[in-house]
Amino acid sequence: MTQAVIAIHGGAGTITRAAMDANREREYTAALEQVLLAGQRVLAEGGSALDAVTEAVRLLEDCPLFNAGKGAVLTHAGTFELDAAVMDGATRNAGAVACVTRVRNPVLAARAVLEHSEHVLFAADGAEAFAEAQGLELVAPDYYFTQARHDQWQRAQASTGMALLDHDAAALAAKAAQAGTDPIDPDKKFGTVGAVACDAQGNLAAATSTGGVTNKQVGRVGDTPVFGAGCYADDVAAVSATGTGEMFIRTVAAHDVSAQMRYAGLSLEESARRVVMEKLVAIEGRGGLIAVDRQGNVTLPFNTEGMYRGVARVGEPVSVLIYG
Amino acid sequence: MTQAVIAIHGGAGTITRAAMDANREREYTAALEQVLLAGQRVLAEGGSALDAVTEAVRLLEDCPLFNAGKGAVLTHAGTFELDAAVMDGATRNAGAVACVTRVRNPVLAARAVLEHSEHVLFAADGAEAFAEAQGLELVAPDYYFTQARHDQWQRAQASTGMALLDHDAAALAAKAAQAGTDPIDPDKKFGTVGAVACDAQGNLAAATSTGGVTNKQVGRVGDTPVFGAGCYADDVAAVSATGTGEMFIRTVAAHDVSAQMRYAGLSLEESARRVVMEKLVAIEGRGGLIAVDRQGNVTLPFNTEGMYRGVARVGEPVSVLIYG
Repeated sequence: MTQAVIAIHGGAGTITRAAMDANREREYTAALEQVLLAGQRVLAEGGSALDAVTEAVRLLEDCPLFNAGKGAVLTHAGTFELDAAVMDGATRNAGAVACVTRVRNPVLAARAVLEHSEHVLFAADGAEAFAEAQGLELVAPDYYFTQARHDQWQRAQASTGMALLDHDAAALAAKAAQAGTDPIDPDKKFGTVGAVACDAQGNLAAATSTGGVTNKQVGRVGDTPVFGAGCYADDVAAVSATGTGEMFIRTVAAHDVSAQMRYAGLSLEESARRVVMEKLVAIEGRGGLIAVDRQGNVTLPFNTEGMYRGVARVGEPVSVLIYG
Repeated sequence: MTQAVIAIHGGAGTITRAAMDANREREYTAALEQVLLAGQRVLAEGGSALDAVTEAVRLLEDCPLFNAGKGAVLTHAGTFELDAAVMDGATRNAGAVACVTRVRNPVLAARAVLEHSEHVLFAADGAEAFAEAQGLELVAPDYYFTQARHDQWQRAQASTGMALLDHDAAALAAKAAQAGTDPIDPDKKFGTVGAVACDAQGNLAAATSTGGVTNKQVGRVGDTPVFGAGCYADDVAAVSATGTGEMFIRTVAAHDVSAQMRYAGLSLEESARRVVMEKLVAIEGRGGLIAVDRQGNVTLPFNTEGMYRGVARVGEPVSVLIYG
């Protein structure tokens, strides 16, 4: 029997002590602790890693502090489009949804795909039709709304000064380089939630959920529902990532953590470190990931100032961290 | 300077000499040869691997014989939803679209994402809005229509006897197991087109495009636009896959070909063989892939009866094969 463990993240980015007041820090810490306790309880009662990560991410989606479910960021059009994925390392069964706009808990839709569909990934209207047929709770788009995300979106729109069309990206990048600034509010880029777990049987699972990046173009899909990029689990490691999703897709970051362990014999910690601190950095990818192996080792590397994160081993106190 | 080479596939599956008359065989062979000659020409003129694979897949999309672009299969709703991806191994730049319904050449939309967007993957309406903003040709859905795919779709619907809702999948599988047959026309499952190339500079690229699987649920996304699954390129290998997409996603098949080479020192051929003949088979994944490495080695393994495929090295005659 392995000592079961769950780890979670609530996004990485420019999170510094200077920018965080004591009340806000307590709020985040308390929220992360509650989620960890719930995941720990599932594992303590003999639940599977798959059940533990699904429950943890469901709670993170319901918490308005994090960019997933309620509290999701807004697209360029001022709408909400959510992605989520879940993968069972024991069987490699997987389920994901992309660009859903009416599903209260995208991770439950992902779990339903895993359990009840021959397919593994559904997008947009088809994903919602599937969720609805599965009897999952649908909500009006204003369910996801929070004033904080709306203000963040307005800042992002104001800082670009205009509609950010994709073919403007090169021009904007050039303008930003001239000005020596990122034209887009940096706090837009790193919100995602996720969980990884190893249960008492040594089975692994991962789940990830996100509202994406603030002011993203409608239809943009990030790394979250791309298995191997932002979510992945097999019999070697389970990984959930957060960051500039495009870079995690291009490096197939989550699968690479497992592959380096399986084929090159790296430890979990060293493999994850190389992915986050070397490979992602090489293409200017920012963010972090959480990962667990079959022995219950956990690592939580990030190349940003901070990452909301925590670990809970069954029978031990939970641990929550925010800064680097 | 490497001897530049391009390889293509037009899908794998139950392709047997018995089922193929001489005219049909000639038709497929001629189509594959034309595509190979076009890709070879790009490379011979000093074009990049990225340009060669984009052009080859564009032509495969335009050819009604293959399940991509014109000639795509129908969804359960009788509609068309196409996916495509392209990746440049030299830079790891990537672009993909999923569930597009009006873009004449999805691979050109994928290429536009690669070149002109900060994002790498767009789905559904957002993908079409992006393609339209890029000035790409849009078509009415009946552009994709072919009588052969319509008949195939009707057979698939008839063989399931009813609407194939996702929550019916388990029941259908049980029914099929009892009857000892696959309830769904097997020819539905393996259509995809793709190309991989190594140019004279030793740079690699891959492109993949598909209409998906016949009678698929609306919104289903397969392995094609999932980088690392059905399309992937880096500085070790470029890979394009075709088959039961869900299994290629769960095994992160395309990235695994590269990872086994990079970390375990396997040859291109042995790495691809293990993925197709062992790892995919272990989870009942059917299909094949084409792959090329920086030395210009090419391998085209498949675990089905046949795969439409071919190879063209600059300065040599093209080679086309269909059966195992």
